[in-house]
Amino acid sequence: MKKILILPGDGIGPEIVAQAKRVLDVLRNDGLAVETAEAPLGGAAYDQYGSPYPEFTQKLAREADAVLLGAVGGPQYDTLDRPLRPERGLLAIRKDLNLFANLRPAILYPELANASTLKPEVVSGLDILIVRELTGDIYFGQPRGVHVNEAGEREGFNTMRYAESEIRRIAHVAFQAAQKRNKKLCSVDKANVLETTEFWKEIVTDVAKEYPDVQLSHMYVDNAAMQLVRNPKQFDVMVTGNIFGDILSDEASMLTGSIGMLPSASLDQNNKGLYEPSHGSAPDIAGKNLANPLATILSLAMLLRYSLANEAAAVRVENAVKKVLADGLRTADIYEEGTRKVSCSEMGDAVVGAL
Amino acid sequence: MKKILILPGDGIGPEIVAQAKRVLDVLRNDGLAVETAEAPLGGAAYDQYGSPYPEFTQKLAREADAVLLGAVGGPQYDTLDRPLRPERGLLAIRKDLNLFANLRPAILYPELANASTLKPEVVSGLDILIVRELTGDIYFGQPRGVHVNEAGEREGFNTMRYAESEIRRIAHVAFQAAQKRNKKLCSVDKANVLETTEFWKEIVTDVAKEYPDVQLSHMYVDNAAMQLVRNPKQFDVMVTGNIFGDILSDEASMLTGSIGMLPSASLDQNNKGLYEPSHGSAPDIAGKNLANPLATILSLAMLLRYSLANEAAAVRVENAVKKVLADGLRTADIYEEGTRKVSCSEMGDAVVGAL
Ligand SMILES: CC(C)[C@H](C(=O)O)[C@@H](O)C(=O)O
Ligand SMILES: CC(C)[C@H](C(=O)O)[C@@H](O)C(=O)O
Repeated sequence: MKKILILPGDGIGPEIVAQAKRVLDVLRNDGLAVETAEAPLGGAAYDQYGSPYPEFTQKLAREADAVLLGAVGGPQYDTLDRPLRPERGLLAIRKDLNLFANLRPAILYPELANASTLKPEVVSGLDILIVRELTGDIYFGQPRGVHVNEAGEREGFNTMRYAESEIRRIAHVAFQAAQKRNKKLCSVDKANVLETTEFWKEIVTDVAKEYPDVQLSHMYVDNAAMQLVRNPKQFDVMVTGNIFGDILSDEASMLTGSIGMLPSASLDQNNKGLYEPSHGSAPDIAGKNLANPLATILSLAMLLRYSLANEAAAVRVENAVKKVLADGLRTADIYEEGTRKVSCSEMGDAVVGAL
Repeated sequence: MKKILILPGDGIGPEIVAQAKRVLDVLRNDGLAVETAEAPLGGAAYDQYGSPYPEFTQKLAREADAVLLGAVGGPQYDTLDRPLRPERGLLAIRKDLNLFANLRPAILYPELANASTLKPEVVSGLDILIVRELTGDIYFGQPRGVHVNEAGEREGFNTMRYAESEIRRIAHVAFQAAQKRNKKLCSVDKANVLETTEFWKEIVTDVAKEYPDVQLSHMYVDNAAMQLVRNPKQFDVMVTGNIFGDILSDEASMLTGSIGMLPSASLDQNNKGLYEPSHGSAPDIAGKNLANPLATILSLAMLLRYSLANEAAAVRVENAVKKVLADGLRTADIYEEGTRKVSCSEMGDAVVGAL
């Protein structure tokens, strides 16, 4: 019996997670052996326990085989002290569970080709996987802070840092992902300026020897940001550090124009993972039954694939999503003329029906 | 008599600079009081003096009122020791001359609207100015390197660092640029994760008090990378640190699809500056008379405007460029059917003619 912890989170989180839970219920009725628990994370956790990643949630998260998250954050928490803010809960659970491998697909669904701001010929058929290191880099590097420097002036400082083993393990994840796809891996760095990323490049190049079937290339981060706009289809899998991955994966998702469709997985060494939509908590539409639940439902599919090793169930969910798109159902964020605008829960109904 | 130092650099550098020099000659014939000198930078400087920023060049650069650069870099230098590589020369001259304010316009010329990979309605009329801090941040922060850490493992590390005065002075440049434009400034940070950029945000917010006519907003860097794709025309001026600016300014230039058109300026406190095209040294087409000289010619226009305070001459050069575009002349990088494909020097001829 596998354990799934559900973290609805903040904003639209509870609404979109509710639809994913209905999908999970269908699968359980059909024999999927999972038990679920629920806990707060982010702002909701602060409200209830005074901390964005409280012990209550931590205990359940450590026990779980997989975690499904809605989204965290909201304007009412912006004035909190930094360690209490919702995103701190997200960073804390990633670090606590050692979820170093963040997989972020940027896929353009043919039915949604018009949603992109890019010309159809540039993005049609787009299918990139960004592998972002998630527990190292300047996100967690010490020392950090704001102090008065030797010149008597205030200054802020942070430390970018990558140890060899951290680079090796994410490189392996990326090469293995590329092996299952089109066998092309682009490692992104700023090796012409930053020693950390020159070291990154050296280690990735070394790991490449174990994957002779994968074609490895290297690209500077500034060029990668350009190439994603110029010709995104040149990429298959991209691998990079935490901060560059944060920037490039958001840029890549937006190329599709339908970030409400994009799931993500954050995995540890043993395929325990946290799954969440690539989009945020959208406080402006929270509670209005307007949000797109498909990225969360597709995150559940990734959960089934990676943490539960249940490819059949994953494909079943993904096919149900494809079916509702083919049927012309659209939430407001992906609506265009000639399609049928539905609410968040109606989209959930449709996916449940399509299963 | 103002002094301009010309640095042809590597790759297509000498070809494109040659055309800008012809433009400058026309202006001198018409009475512009400047004297010029020439020196190598980057790979060319390594070849001649064994250093990418040799004393010969440094001395002339310090004496000059403005510097016009082609581009640096080439594959033949990739195996050199890091401190000898061409881009080190570029970083060195920026730091040496204290060129902390990098201004990178991303403008879509109406005639070149088709060159963009984005839909016309998303980018038509695009006119963003990115103000990038250029002498601080993780580019220059100490400590840095690769060492064996306490766990006995090799690791790479770099330091992001910004002192209050560094943030203040670039903020002033950005607010003043916004005052001359549409009075909107977006400061880009990752304040939810990095103390350095939380401090950045605090200082920029403080400087804003002196510019009540400018509307200041803040955006996380990952969101900025998305918004540039989703709706770039929401931006007027953006200001950010060195590494985020490196990434976002390249992304923004590529939105236009015609990076061969985009100039840049890097200024010190007294409007002494280094001017260079936003594109690179394009070793693949070097020496073939194929390159687009317009970004370099427009860099010369920025030089006239900022370092020589000669707005009339700047506008004259810019109008000549607009004229040749309107006349349908295109180098290969911006060629499309129905226009006339010309070489680098023919483009130079045309601009000289249009002056
Ligand atoms: C909320 C924030 C801390 C987070 C990050 O920067 O990692 C987010 O942008 C993401 O990409 O998941
Ligand atoms: C060549 C490189 C060192 C440089 C930088 O990163 O600043 C370049 O990318 C730029 O933007 O001018």
